[in-house]
Amino acid sequence: MELPAHFHFTHRRTVEFADTDLAGIVHFANFFRYVETAEHAFFRSLGFPSHSADGAEHHGWPRLDVSCQFLRPARFEQTLEIGLRIEELRTSSLRYGFWIFGEETAGRSLLAHGRFAIIHVAFTPPARQLHKAPIPAPLRARLENFRSSPPPAS
Amino acid sequence: MELPAHFHFTHRRTVEFADTDLAGIVHFANFFRYVETAEHAFFRSLGFPSHSADGAEHHGWPRLDVSCQFLRPARFEQTLEIGLRIEELRTSSLRYGFWIFGEETAGRSLLAHGRFAIIHVAFTPPARQLHKAPIPAPLRARLENFRSSPPPAS
Amino acid sequence: MELPAHFHFTHRRTVEFADTDLAGIVHFANFFRYVETAEHAFFRSLGFPSHSADGAEHHGWPRLDVSCQFLRPARFEQTLEIGLRIEELRTSSLRYGFWIFGEETAGRSLLAHGRFAIIHVAFTPPARQLHKAPIPAPLRARLENFRSSPPPAS
Amino acid sequence: MELPAHFHFTHRRTVEFADTDLAGIVHFANFFRYVETAEHAFFRSLGFPSHSADGAEHHGWPRLDVSCQFLRPARFEQTLEIGLRIEELRTSSLRYGFWIFGEETAGRSLLAHGRFAIIHVAFTPPARQLHKAPIPAPLRARLENFRSSPPPAS
Repeated sequence: MELPAHFHFTHRRTVEFADTDLAGIVHFANFFRYVETAEHAFFRSLGFPSHSADGAEHHGWPRLDVSCQFLRPARFEQTLEIGLRIEELRTSSLRYGFWIFGEETAGRSLLAHGRFAIIHVAFTPPARQLHKAPIPAPLRARLENFRSSPPPAS
Repeated sequence: MELPAHFHFTHRRTVEFADTDLAGIVHFANFFRYVETAEHAFFRSLGFPSHSADGAEHHGWPRLDVSCQFLRPARFEQTLEIGLRIEELRTSSLRYGFWIFGEETAGRSLLAHGRFAIIHVAFTPPARQLHKAPIPAPLRARLENFRSSPPPAS
Repeated sequence: MELPAHFHFTHRRTVEFADTDLAGIVHFANFFRYVETAEHAFFRSLGFPSHSADGAEHHGWPRLDVSCQFLRPARFEQTLEIGLRIEELRTSSLRYGFWIFGEETAGRSLLAHGRFAIIHVAFTPPARQLHKAPIPAPLRARLENFRSSPPPAS
Repeated sequence: MELPAHFHFTHRRTVEFADTDLAGIVHFANFFRYVETAEHAFFRSLGFPSHSADGAEHHGWPRLDVSCQFLRPARFEQTLEIGLRIEELRTSSLRYGFWIFGEETAGRSLLAHGRFAIIHVAFTPPARQLHKAPIPAPLRARLENFRSSPPPAS
């Protein structure tokens, strides 16, 4: 499991009761919700809402492809930290890797790792005709900057 | 706990794994989702979709007021039956009671009971301006018929 | 709509994308999840986990009765503040009121208000035999203190 | 996108309102819930519950690895059909492919496709120590039979 030297964004949250299932651990589908929420916080931190409406036309970022390996369970009231790293930028789509860590008594552990490929689209809700739209130039510039900058000299 | 002589609609479903929480039973918030789904199936059975779009204008049924008493837990893979009964019809809103039963080895038990008050609205999504809209006359006629008809002689 | 002079606990959170539905607003069932999470943060702030395991025996707080009035919709990325106020303490159960506020451009609005009655139970998961258990004395003392103390002289 | 000649199991369901998000389509994380539910129905059809308790010890099937490609959105009240096909059987784990189809006015479309790798475990809830457990021999026999049997001549 490769672990990047640094992340482009990190996001923290606490596991809620309704996120767990009868096995006593977080239901796996919630990991995807956690990652998407970190992605939205990342975009928000760059000044770009992940969903916007310009009159009747909306912009959003549906998923193209997602994958996740589950290494260890997450538990009720555990603090999670989600690290994101942009891996590929294309005209209308991008791919990022995510790493979900859980705080434990002795340090923290990697719980899950995966990738999301997402695409920028315009549509009129309820989404009858989604069509892909180029990633806006100012957002692209911010994202390219992340990819080209060397890791911080910590 | 009053139990009606008959219901205006009944809907069955099976408890899914993701509906449970670490106490080993269905998380209470899912009971509200179950009831709403039964309501939508009821409306669909009458030929009225619970959410529709006419050009840019949408119609829907937000909740005004809900209440629920929880009597017994629901469990993974348990079959549930949800009975609905229209209790009050107003110009734009209505109130119905619901009763959720769970099949058990020896017969079935009442697990929860409550009421939903819902209102018919028109809006342009994402719902910036919801305004109430009269219940369409044909739907009203169907619902009034339920209320005035005597219970089936069975 | 009575608004208390002060709350016993307040909790903030941000609306996530998966919490919304096709009407463009937060699905009502998520309000219940939000309130439960605020309750758990309240208990945690008092030093009492809302769910614990002592060997095979677990302790938890199922819902007895919940009600909610929905006044205004909550929206994606909106900051919510949930105020709680203990209203009644019994041997094994308690009832609290909740008020959910949403931050808006001009100040904040009350979005929803309701009550939860919850009961303290012991059980062996998956919860085959839930039996009620007295509220632990130290927690009771903390909660009674909230109820008897005058509002802060702000 | 390879489409198998036949599936080892198919499962149908209807999209519910709470499954949608403000883009007007099913939130992607729910596709994973749908697949898991189809898997549980498959195991149930073979006479093996996906979660069981034998005294204090529980058996379950956590996810090891999941991936999904999203081809087309799913919509409120759409009927979905989920096809499963066992692709690999190991001592304690297995991998299956899934194909999610949506009924549309003109025939049906493939909406999503992916793979789940799952592992058989024993644990004492809440799942402090998960340890892998061999797939029970009778279940293995049933699953191997699926893999070796030729497609039905129809």
